[in-house]
Order: sequence, then C-alpha cells, then structure tokens
Amino acid sequence: MKMMIDTPSSAAEILKAQDNILILVHGHPDGDTLGCGYSLCRALISMGKKAAVRCSDEIPKKYSYLSQGIEDLSFEPQFIVSVDVADAALLGKKNQELYGDKVDLSIDHHGSNRIFAKKTLLDDKAAAACEIMLEVIKALGVEITKDIANCIYTGLSTDTGCFRYSNVTPRTMRMGAEMIEAGADNAAINTVMFETKTKTYVALEKLCLAGMETYFDERFALITVTQEMFRLSGSDESECDAIASLPRQIEGVVIGATLREKADGTFKVSMRTHAPADASAICAEMGGGGHMRAAGCQLDGPLENAKKILIENIKKYFEK
Amino acid sequence: MKMMIDTPSSAAEILKAQDNILILVHGHPDGDTLGCGYSLCRALISMGKKAAVRCSDEIPKKYSYLSQGIEDLSFEPQFIVSVDVADAALLGKKNQELYGDKVDLSIDHHGSNRIFAKKTLLDDKAAAACEIMLEVIKALGVEITKDIANCIYTGLSTDTGCFRYSNVTPRTMRMGAEMIEAGADNAAINTVMFETKTKTYVALEKLCLAGMETYFDERFALITVTQEMFRLSGSDESECDAIASLPRQIEGVVIGATLREKADGTFKVSMRTHAPADASAICAEMGGGGHMRAAGCQLDGPLENAKKILIENIKKYFEK
Repeated sequence: MKMMIDTPSSAAEILKAQDNILILVHGHPDGDTLGCGYSLCRALISMGKKAAVRCSDEIPKKYSYLSQGIEDLSFEPQFIVSVDVADAALLGKKNQELYGDKVDLSIDHHGSNRIFAKKTLLDDKAAAACEIMLEVIKALGVEITKDIANCIYTGLSTDTGCFRYSNVTPRTMRMGAEMIEAGADNAAINTVMFETKTKTYVALEKLCLAGMETYFDERFALITVTQEMFRLSGSDESECDAIASLPRQIEGVVIGATLREKADGTFKVSMRTHAPADASAICAEMGGGGHMRAAGCQLDGPLENAKKILIENIKKYFEK
Repeated sequence: MKMMIDTPSSAAEILKAQDNILILVHGHPDGDTLGCGYSLCRALISMGKKAAVRCSDEIPKKYSYLSQGIEDLSFEPQFIVSVDVADAALLGKKNQELYGDKVDLSIDHHGSNRIFAKKTLLDDKAAAACEIMLEVIKALGVEITKDIANCIYTGLSTDTGCFRYSNVTPRTMRMGAEMIEAGADNAAINTVMFETKTKTYVALEKLCLAGMETYFDERFALITVTQEMFRLSGSDESECDAIASLPRQIEGVVIGATLREKADGTFKVSMRTHAPADASAICAEMGGGGHMRAAGCQLDGPLENAKKILIENIKKYFEK
C-alpha cells in the first residue's frame, strides 16, 4: 500500500525510528538530488545512525565538496529513502534493478511523482527538493552545520538557475538567506555552478551556436548536437545541460530545443519555453514529459527523422 | 559642509520635510540606480509630493517598466537627491553641469563614494543601493506596492548577477523574498535582465568566441571586438558588457580581457579576474583602474600595438 505523508515532521519521525539508511539520488545526478542526499546523510550520521548515499551514475567532480568528509559506511540497508526522484526508473539502471520496488520513503518536489515508494512526502510548490529536505532536517532536530548549509544551498541555487526562474518563492529566498547565515559558501558555489565553463564546453558551445537554426518567424530555435560534435570538441553528454538553455535565451524565441544524438543513434530532445508555451504538453505528444518551462522526450534517428517529428509538433503548437 | 547620515530613518525624516524633489541617477544607467530612482519617486508621489527622475543618458528600453505610469511632473527643484552615484562626475555630463555641486542628499552603497553631496547616507555592505532605498521607503511609511517592489527587486537582482555574486548577504535574499511577496514580477524581470540575448548580441558573441585567443598556459584569455565585428553582427558597444565576462568563465583562466576597438581607433580594455589576480593593479599599470575583479583602461591603436601592451602587462603579472 502506498501512503502520502503530510508534513516534514512526519517524515522526520519515520526517519528517527530507523537505522542503516540508504539514500538514493536520481541518475545523471544534479545539485538538487545530491544536495538532498548528502545533507540528509550528514544529518543522520550526526544523530549516530549509519547512512550512505548511492547513485547509479558517476557523480561529476564539481559536486565533490557535497560529500567531503563523509565516511563511506558499508552496511546492510534496513531503510531506503529516495530524494528528488519522481519515478523508480529515474534511479538509473543499477539502483532501479537493486531497489526500484524497495523504496520506503520518497522525498520529492515533482508534481509528476509516480508514487512508487511505500511512503511519499511530496511538495510540488518547492522550487528545489532541498527546500523540503531542510524542513525535514530541522524536524530531526539536527544543527544546520556549514556542510549541511552548503548542500542545501547547492540544491536551492542549482534548481532555480541561481534564484532566477519562476519556480522561486519567498521561501526559497529566505532559505537561501538562512543557509548563507549558517556558513554556506554561496559565492564560491555559484562560481563553480554558473560561472565556469570547461574548455571542451566552450568548444562545443561554439559549434552549437554556429549551427543553430530558427523556424516559425524565429519563435522556435533549434540546436543539434551530434556525436561528431562531441568528438570535435572533446566534450560529452554531461556538458549538454547548459547548451539546452541557449536557444530560448534569444530575443523573440518562445520555444528553444536541443536535439542531442546519443551513442545508439537515437535523439534526446530537451525543450525550454517561455510562457505560454507548455513544454511538458508538447513533449507529451512525442512520448515524453517534464515541467511547463522545461521538458524532454526521445526520438528515433536518423537526424532528419527526429528533426521532422520535432518540427511538426512545434508547428502544431503554433497553429493552435 | 558635508554631513554623513547614520540611518535610513534620518534620511526619511529629511525627505518628509521636502517637496519638489529631483532624483538623479548615474549616467549609463543600470537596474540598481533606476530601481532606486523610480521606487523613491513613486514613494514620494504617493505621499502627495512632486518628484521626478532625471538621467544624463538615454534609459535603455528594457527598463521602461520601472517608470511606467509615473506622471512626468515639471517643477522647479527644491531638493536634489542622487541615488547609487559615487561621485558628481558619474552623474554624466548634463546633470553634472546642472546639479553636480547642488546635490542635497546622496543615497549610495559605493565604498568609493566621494562625499560630494551636502548629506550622504552610505552603506557599503549593501549589495545594491536598492537595499538602502527599501529601508528609506519603509521609514517614509509608504506601502510597498507592486510597482515599488518591481523597482527594488530589479536593483537587488541586477547588482548581484541575480543573487550570484559575493556581495549578496542574507539581507539581500530576505529583501528579495519580501519584494516577491509584495508582487514583484521576479521571473519576468530576470528573464529580461539575464535570459534574453538580442539577435545582434548572439551574432557578435559567435564572432567573439570564434576569435578568442589564450596565452600563458591558457591562464589568460583574450577577446578582440573590432568595428568590423560590430558591422558584421549589427551589434554595438552597448552590448559589450556581457562579452567582457566571457573569457574569465573558462576553466583555468585567471585573467580574462576584451580589447574593444572604438570608433576613433583607440582600444578599451575590460579586464575580469579570479583571485588572486588584481585587475585594478594590472590596469593601473596601463593608466586605468577599477575593482579587484573588474577593471579597465584605454590603449592606443592600432590593434597590434594595443594587444602588445596588454600582453606585456599580463606577462609581467604572471612573472611576479
């Protein structure tokens, strides 16, 4: 039986009664899922419990400060928590196979959460899952250390484009203030997350901008990223998140998309929109999903096929 | 006699006693000076006073919402306030000539303020002058309307790179929260200020990135912007601020610079550094100045000459 949990305090009560807690983050981890995972892990360890964070995929080096100093405990998991994970499939291959049907508690902020865990604490008004996590950690009665503040701040900042997007609420801002007071290295974190481009990324961006196309009176802008462009630039898929936001930034563009060729020849669409265009609805037409302003889907290759399907669906939207 | 004012309340008391108030913003106006100016103007008008904002330079169109609906009153100024202006020279040519030695009250956050006004309210811990202005407006007893909230939020956000930089304090974040609660269109403002690139800017950026050079083991990155590149892209000098921040964003780069050809054939250097490189010191060697992380200077053409002098000075820095 699946159960919804109403408050962060209830989730905290459940966690207090448990030990040997395994925390699962989503695959292709980002700052919010890792910030949630490591802040909870630090809180539980400070309570004298055994806890560890696991991810199906490799964790990008830039996030290494989140886990710094955490002892990598090995234990037989007795309780499994997922953080910022909307669906068991998003745990990634490895952890879905191992734990997909065994998650005891899901703490999440996605309206699209599939309620796959035994118990779910969901707040889709939270800009970042770290907003919910901070309330859970406070309800655990744990002191917000500098390390925890760095984790929570990272989630708040990365899931909002540094407090830029429409998902930001007064709570997001106030929690940011509180984390800075608790010692979060806010400026240093933002430099790493938002002000640093690798050389390979810069080379990829150059190729992407050179090949950008626009359609429908320049209201739709499209960037195509091919395996060949990865080879030429030395970049890879892990650096494509920032590319996805480029087309929408152009004045007059309502829908921006990237079409990214995967190693198996299929294509991943990442769509970013301005109001009123609903990225989630457009991507749903192609078998995908996501949020209003950011969504995605998969399309079969070759490139001409993927591009045709994508453009047809954008056309349908503009004709509505 | 010049006098320092201690608190926003004291400034508010002074303003309460005045009428026919002229508010001066700095030349080449930005979001903070305009946010200050128009929020104060709205507050004073709501108190039944006559007030108006004046700028020596044209106000970029993207800021037009700040003044929307304000009646353009004409009156003989009896009291002159400058906002976010560190020195009379920064009022710009026109207003310096008219009012440079007549400013009654300066409300500012620059540590470098030259104390040019009769009375000065200065808080150099404020990330934005709008932080101080919000406290003044509250002390005036004026309701923070949606329009005032939009003005204050604009200053907070634009002077901090959207809450990204090291100048952000918990107060900045909490004032951001408060302005969102008061109705500020935070997401829309940030889209205009940070997520929108004109087509001409995108074209210029493409040319700039294609021609970027690196020196000294890729610790120095240089972008050259020529008059020819302005012609090719349709862009102009007003769009170069964002270009200046590109070289420093590259991983491993300690000093980033742009060399911008002016119409008269001379070159403007804009330098951005990471710690410990002191942009201000390096530019001072070339007759310029600025801050630790952002400074500038002028060099004579032709390009080869300007580039040689710049690179020699960077070399001197790295050899130290």
